[in-house]
Amino acid sequence: MPVWGGIEAGGTKWVCVVGSGPHTIAAEVRFPTTTPHETLTRAVAFFQHYQEQYGPLQAIGIGAFGPVDLHTTSPTFGYITNTPKPGWAQTDIDGRISRAVGVPVHVDTDVNAAVFGEYRWGAAQGLDTCVYLTVGTGIGGGGLINGKLTHGLLHPELGHMYLPHDTQTDPFPGACPFHGDCLEGLASGAAIAQRWGRTGDTLPAHHPAWPLEAHYVALGLTNVIVTLSPQRIILGGGVMQQAQLFPLIRRKVQTLLNGYVNDPALLDQIEDYIVPPALGNRAGVLGALALAQ
Amino acid sequence: MPVWGGIEAGGTKWVCVVGSGPHTIAAEVRFPTTTPHETLTRAVAFFQHYQEQYGPLQAIGIGAFGPVDLHTTSPTFGYITNTPKPGWAQTDIDGRISRAVGVPVHVDTDVNAAVFGEYRWGAAQGLDTCVYLTVGTGIGGGGLINGKLTHGLLHPELGHMYLPHDTQTDPFPGACPFHGDCLEGLASGAAIAQRWGRTGDTLPAHHPAWPLEAHYVALGLTNVIVTLSPQRIILGGGVMQQAQLFPLIRRKVQTLLNGYVNDPALLDQIEDYIVPPALGNRAGVLGALALAQ
Repeated sequence: MPVWGGIEAGGTKWVCVVGSGPHTIAAEVRFPTTTPHETLTRAVAFFQHYQEQYGPLQAIGIGAFGPVDLHTTSPTFGYITNTPKPGWAQTDIDGRISRAVGVPVHVDTDVNAAVFGEYRWGAAQGLDTCVYLTVGTGIGGGGLINGKLTHGLLHPELGHMYLPHDTQTDPFPGACPFHGDCLEGLASGAAIAQRWGRTGDTLPAHHPAWPLEAHYVALGLTNVIVTLSPQRIILGGGVMQQAQLFPLIRRKVQTLLNGYVNDPALLDQIEDYIVPPALGNRAGVLGALALAQ
Repeated sequence: MPVWGGIEAGGTKWVCVVGSGPHTIAAEVRFPTTTPHETLTRAVAFFQHYQEQYGPLQAIGIGAFGPVDLHTTSPTFGYITNTPKPGWAQTDIDGRISRAVGVPVHVDTDVNAAVFGEYRWGAAQGLDTCVYLTVGTGIGGGGLINGKLTHGLLHPELGHMYLPHDTQTDPFPGACPFHGDCLEGLASGAAIAQRWGRTGDTLPAHHPAWPLEAHYVALGLTNVIVTLSPQRIILGGGVMQQAQLFPLIRRKVQTLLNGYVNDPALLDQIEDYIVPPALGNRAGVLGALALAQ
């Protein structure tokens, strides 16, 4: 049976798998993201070792932290470009891995990989327009539109949209070094930790942090809905492990839209419209595998 | 030579053409939007008359004010649905025209038609991802992504995104009946008229209305850029006849992005990135013609 490789190339850790789908993972390894050389060497070694033992891979897919150059005609195609992550700027992950492992490589952003994984095997199956928003240390989004991943000029950076911010009720100035109080600046895990002086996972479920978090995420989703008109929105990432956020966000989105987008998906079935990833925290690496295919 | 029909079906006026492109318009008529019966009858008469004299049309494209039902499987496909415009809710424009004229009809939103016209013959030629934003009495947007028009759940309603609104410097509460101070509520022609007590076309070029207008439009475009990553943004509509807005908007978008989207199109060539429609106020009706083709 043919097998493929998948890499969830995160800013904190990398997960590499070999297999053909969610239930047929033949090998897996995870390790922290250190220097580009060490991290890429470990990934290459994993795939080389597999090929020596069991035979060739068809291709490898990578869902990478960004920004990633996705212009197929660019001389830095497949590079991680101007990331603030030390040592990683201008790293050619596509070329390094394809040359060393000797198979074709397909790179996209981590969030585009996640939405593609959900499209193939999860909560976006059968849809043609869907958004995946991850709310973790940062906030990012991937989009599938007309059955294809969104790229455009670069690729979406949904976390950096500007939102209403009532500084009377929430005087926190925002945590984004580029934009202050953009969505990521107001609602990322880093913003929660800075605003409340402790990380979200140590705050109780009834803490006022959560209605405020739901408010900002709902504003972001409302703007995504009027901009992209997705058929479903998948909300993943560490902060969304707080399951109490989902009903708060769904109700707030309905309040903010105020009946303007007149569709039963939003008015009557919003529990099926704003959902957690069906693949859980495997969406990214399985999406990378799907990209390879 | 084969010819097609195009209808810009606006809320104020309809423009109908027969031809094959911007320089080969064989016939044209324009009339105010009155009742659905009267308006549709005039459009049908124009195309019937043409066919009787010169032979059959290949097809007719319509760019319609919305919301429009674009689900091909829906029983109300091609209808204008829950519009507040008196008498027009649940009007089957697609079926009425295709049956009466006897040719296939292709309906989309007015702004999707405009972006498609620019894609075919104007400022979006050769691009695969482009947004058309019209700032007129209301604000609407159409998008072309991966070479296809955006539909999704319904279709985009870009005018209704939420934006930062500093009520200290701009106490105007917003003009949108659904959302108050959304983009349309703050920056449409209707909002300008309500805020300043006179219509925009009577305000001088140095009036403080214009920097404020540029501020809100730039916030909206910044959110569009981080959400859709378009390769170009086309700004049309009556308010954008104020040519002094373009440099103000371009500079403000650069300030708001603050170098985050690191691409020469935004950093060095923003005059070619945020542009007026190459087809001017013909984008809508020519786009309808392009839809027919």
